[in-house]
Amino acid sequence: MIIVMEPKATKEEIDVVKNNLEKKGFKIVLNHGDVMTVIAAIGDKRLVDPASIASFEGVRSVKLIQEPYKLASREGKEEDTVIEFPNGVKIGGLERPVMMVGPCSVEKDFNGLLRVAVAAREMGCQFLRGGAFKPRTSPYEFQGLEEKALEYLAIAREKTGLLVVTEVMDTADVPMVEDYADVVQIGARNMQNFKLLKAVGKCGKPVLLKRGGAASIREFLLAAEHIMCNGNEKVILCERGIKSFDSTFTRNTLDLAAIPIIKKYSHLPIIADPSHGTGRRYLIEPMAKAALVAGANGLMIEVHHDPENASSDGAQSLSIPQFKDMQKRINKLIGRIDYDNQQLKD
Amino acid sequence: MIIVMEPKATKEEIDVVKNNLEKKGFKIVLNHGDVMTVIAAIGDKRLVDPASIASFEGVRSVKLIQEPYKLASREGKEEDTVIEFPNGVKIGGLERPVMMVGPCSVEKDFNGLLRVAVAAREMGCQFLRGGAFKPRTSPYEFQGLEEKALEYLAIAREKTGLLVVTEVMDTADVPMVEDYADVVQIGARNMQNFKLLKAVGKCGKPVLLKRGGAASIREFLLAAEHIMCNGNEKVILCERGIKSFDSTFTRNTLDLAAIPIIKKYSHLPIIADPSHGTGRRYLIEPMAKAALVAGANGLMIEVHHDPENASSDGAQSLSIPQFKDMQKRINKLIGRIDYDNQQLKD
Amino acid sequence: MIIVMEPKATKEEIDVVKNNLEKKGFKIVLNHGDVMTVIAAIGDKRLVDPASIASFEGVRSVKLIQEPYKLASREGKEEDTVIEFPNGVKIGGLERPVMMVGPCSVEKDFNGLLRVAVAAREMGCQFLRGGAFKPRTSPYEFQGLEEKALEYLAIAREKTGLLVVTEVMDTADVPMVEDYADVVQIGARNMQNFKLLKAVGKCGKPVLLKRGGAASIREFLLAAEHIMCNGNEKVILCERGIKSFDSTFTRNTLDLAAIPIIKKYSHLPIIADPSHGTGRRYLIEPMAKAALVAGANGLMIEVHHDPENASSDGAQSLSIPQFKDMQKRINKLIGRIDYDNQQLKD
Amino acid sequence: MIIVMEPKATKEEIDVVKNNLEKKGFKIVLNHGDVMTVIAAIGDKRLVDPASIASFEGVRSVKLIQEPYKLASREGKEEDTVIEFPNGVKIGGLERPVMMVGPCSVEKDFNGLLRVAVAAREMGCQFLRGGAFKPRTSPYEFQGLEEKALEYLAIAREKTGLLVVTEVMDTADVPMVEDYADVVQIGARNMQNFKLLKAVGKCGKPVLLKRGGAASIREFLLAAEHIMCNGNEKVILCERGIKSFDSTFTRNTLDLAAIPIIKKYSHLPIIADPSHGTGRRYLIEPMAKAALVAGANGLMIEVHHDPENASSDGAQSLSIPQFKDMQKRINKLIGRIDYDNQQLKD
Repeated sequence: MIIVMEPKATKEEIDVVKNNLEKKGFKIVLNHGDVMTVIAAIGDKRLVDPASIASFEGVRSVKLIQEPYKLASREGKEEDTVIEFPNGVKIGGLERPVMMVGPCSVEKDFNGLLRVAVAAREMGCQFLRGGAFKPRTSPYEFQGLEEKALEYLAIAREKTGLLVVTEVMDTADVPMVEDYADVVQIGARNMQNFKLLKAVGKCGKPVLLKRGGAASIREFLLAAEHIMCNGNEKVILCERGIKSFDSTFTRNTLDLAAIPIIKKYSHLPIIADPSHGTGRRYLIEPMAKAALVAGANGLMIEVHHDPENASSDGAQSLSIPQFKDMQKRINKLIGRIDYDNQQLKD
Repeated sequence: MIIVMEPKATKEEIDVVKNNLEKKGFKIVLNHGDVMTVIAAIGDKRLVDPASIASFEGVRSVKLIQEPYKLASREGKEEDTVIEFPNGVKIGGLERPVMMVGPCSVEKDFNGLLRVAVAAREMGCQFLRGGAFKPRTSPYEFQGLEEKALEYLAIAREKTGLLVVTEVMDTADVPMVEDYADVVQIGARNMQNFKLLKAVGKCGKPVLLKRGGAASIREFLLAAEHIMCNGNEKVILCERGIKSFDSTFTRNTLDLAAIPIIKKYSHLPIIADPSHGTGRRYLIEPMAKAALVAGANGLMIEVHHDPENASSDGAQSLSIPQFKDMQKRINKLIGRIDYDNQQLKD
Repeated sequence: MIIVMEPKATKEEIDVVKNNLEKKGFKIVLNHGDVMTVIAAIGDKRLVDPASIASFEGVRSVKLIQEPYKLASREGKEEDTVIEFPNGVKIGGLERPVMMVGPCSVEKDFNGLLRVAVAAREMGCQFLRGGAFKPRTSPYEFQGLEEKALEYLAIAREKTGLLVVTEVMDTADVPMVEDYADVVQIGARNMQNFKLLKAVGKCGKPVLLKRGGAASIREFLLAAEHIMCNGNEKVILCERGIKSFDSTFTRNTLDLAAIPIIKKYSHLPIIADPSHGTGRRYLIEPMAKAALVAGANGLMIEVHHDPENASSDGAQSLSIPQFKDMQKRINKLIGRIDYDNQQLKD
Repeated sequence: MIIVMEPKATKEEIDVVKNNLEKKGFKIVLNHGDVMTVIAAIGDKRLVDPASIASFEGVRSVKLIQEPYKLASREGKEEDTVIEFPNGVKIGGLERPVMMVGPCSVEKDFNGLLRVAVAAREMGCQFLRGGAFKPRTSPYEFQGLEEKALEYLAIAREKTGLLVVTEVMDTADVPMVEDYADVVQIGARNMQNFKLLKAVGKCGKPVLLKRGGAASIREFLLAAEHIMCNGNEKVILCERGIKSFDSTFTRNTLDLAAIPIIKKYSHLPIIADPSHGTGRRYLIEPMAKAALVAGANGLMIEVHHDPENASSDGAQSLSIPQFKDMQKRINKLIGRIDYDNQQLKD
């Protein structure tokens, strides 16, 4: 931790900070400049709240040197985390990127869901996604079929062999969702719902954690840390777009640089969701490909059997034929990437 | 709803959209321009998802005319909502602004809390705030005393007559918090935790809803709508700063214009939290005063008996003497505002 | 400067950085932590580009301790800068806040301009603002009357005694604008037009520098530094709103906390522009008052004799009667502020 | 244009707006809803300022249907603009993406520049970039060699056959820069320096226009329109990152979705600058590749013969060996893209 003192800070004020930090076990180095004094507090004491230090008289600012995510960080664990499912599917590291496809929300028409699942299977995808509980900005929109949806997903899994990814929105529903799902998803709006993070940290299934729309990468990794420090180290991160000042042409700004950044600072797998990340159908394919060459470990794509009558997110869903058409090109690109050498194969 | 068609949209594509909307009960007016056709769909049908319309072939964009918050909007209820508590305290409309003060989180030292409460009472404040459950970005930081904290708050209420505001973070805790609190708070990170909004919408206490750090005013009012449409119309909004590109000097950007905007478009009371809204002690007073003259119905301010040893948010907490000193000036300003005429009294 | 090394940085890499900085005149303190080494480079060497240090192998990040604005900073000059005009008007420090009012752009109808100026004078304002050159997002909008507008402003000054503030957009026009204006304005879009900053830094008139729509406070003060280090220390800063993710209800987000922040870190006067800062007429009065109690040294307000037919910015301009009505209340508030004690007078 | 009236707007207020727009040549359709009236004003009248309409009493908001860029839009010109240089190099449409490489700024050491140029040539690049005038946030940083730099670039062109791209910052320098450069660059900070846009709009060389750090896509295309409506239709757009709330790990957020968006709404070529777009060396390659598969018509990359001693932007510059290593993989990817079919070749 680096503590920058105000130019006018007194010797007494500097001493109060120094003594306080020494009592907490830090080694202190004072750096007296011409204008101000800088205190370096050395030690891996992640429990000290920088804001409490910043509250001492005479302190101008406090800068963290080491991020407080230990379990999620590359420093803590050097080799890539690869999550393996009972059916042999793997995600992370240098494994071939996986595809998670399906409708935004599971709807009454089971056959529609099944048609999507069959198409996904046919195209070589590994996961079926679909919402049972839908977080909706407006209370007057479709909120999801809840357990009925989970049953539908389980049947579709049985019929196709796809793994199921579905979101949980409340601690009370964690046992039920965990029961049905192969991957439990935490949505962007719940990325800092810490009670929920704790609950899925105690569950037995891998967790797909979506980045909040205004979450910094630091906050994103700390949310993963909340899950991991409760015992669940199988966390898959998902970049799905952030809020920016420009939302005329897209719903969110897909921050693809987050992929190589997270691969540098964390060992966890990271995938991209170009459907939510853009909100526009014509942008899905270019952003999906861009995410893959940027190093994504997988993609999540919304596909609906009848987008024009979808209960949610129709505008960003692909129809089944559109999906198949695109997936052919995506598969070709995936086949070309030489993951060991991070480049295209000859 | 206004549907802008692509310049190249065919007559068939236009007809498909038109027929679909007519079936849903809208009156349709087609406006053929030189370059593109614009479809006006007239009717108060808030259940139609604009994204599903946007998914039709040939549609360029869909613009909502009427926001989907009905209960929270000024159009739906013209007169200001004034919430009255059993002890006669009122908040909203032209009532004198209220003060909610207290520590970020309730800590083990009950006497510290009581000293803050006594000081608050002495200065004429109406509410004691304090967190029992603390949402913390890092899992290694203090997470709150939970029920013990609620008991402390209840004792402090008994001793001082202050009303208690405290946050609930999980649906499972709503009954317990509702039991102890006079106002149940939803924190910024849970503003779109829809299950929780629903749960407090069914509870019997007024709800203080904090604006999410990246929530638009539209999303903020829709979150209030989630609470209201579940039966609880006693919602107090709270502006507490939004994320912006500049966080060198502050934790958040306090968006004070949100106060007069919400007063125009909604009948709900709105207060400001300059402590979280800035994150810096020296900014609290100027921003508190600014919020009041901008029309805030109250302020929430963090006060701690020993900020340098606070478990959370020390840097933005006032000590008791700092608080008293500031509150004298705040009280003078409040006394000067002539609410009927939105101006300073002679 | 604080240089954080990568956990895996070698001793050789650390030495290369250390030697490089020592050669540049810094005193170096090495702080070896458990995980990584932190190098403190002490010295007031503002000419070193932190990015060049960040480019060394093994460097994770570089944090500046001291901001590179010397002339604009409170550390460099403790007492407030107060700018005095030949007619005795003063701006800055504890002087009574000034009012700058007038149309967005000066139009063909001189009498309209004069009516605004006369009303401004009548209400006790000190400055007439009006654009001769108009930066317009679209090339098809009104671009300003250029020198004709400057002549109009000069005549209005002669008739009313108001001082004239007007924008310059190009280095080639600086001599002409300097000739006519009492204050030369740099618009938000030109805040980092460094050639123009240099040119007004060499001119003889005070400069009103508007904050760029996406400029951090640090960048804002550095833009002032560009002017000051070219010889002109008479810089008035102006907060006029920043871009945020929410522009449904406003054009910009007025960042009022910037006012007390700048007063702490700089000695320069700072005013607020609630007209551009909100873009909505009904928000001007509450934001104007909020800016004043937050400590603004003045306000800039758009007033037009016929807003519905204005060539630019009609929606955020007040009509003359609206302005007079509001200004009465603003004047009452200004009269009440006790600047020495930063509080309301009895 | 769509004008949404306030729910309480009177018939008189509606008529005033209607009559005003009819006088301006619009065809008016009134849509009376249950709650509010919506006025559709049909006609391609780009000269009407929506803000002036928004200023009428009783108007809630004004929504533009058609963007005011005519020359830059795909509606105005369907086929892709392909810019051809005298040496046969082409940029735009389905042409093979071009590479623009070189140091951030041209420095005293001509041989360093030449070494970069030779390496670029060797790797098949088409353009040499290098700044003669450097916009610097701080006035104490290196500002560029000015004409001397232009001479160096011209000599390097002579020796290598590369085309020269260099920035102009002031209208006064346009003739000189135009003389030396093959492409005249407008930097991000000058994207809305309208006088400069006008000046390069009248010059005889293609213009590379960088997106401003807080410019919406609409503002970006309008800046291109400023150049085009002054006579120069050879505009190359460049995405170089936007400001977001998160700048811990990057300098900017590279908005790659802007590439397919601009390709849909405009016919102009668009390239990406991953060096400025990320500010970190290790992010350049993944973001460069991502930009290419997203459809970029070219890349701009910073390469320096000695990044650790660069006068500017060292941290984001590649050394010559790093560049050559990366460029081999980039060239392989470029060779693989089948532009006609927007996919990878077999």
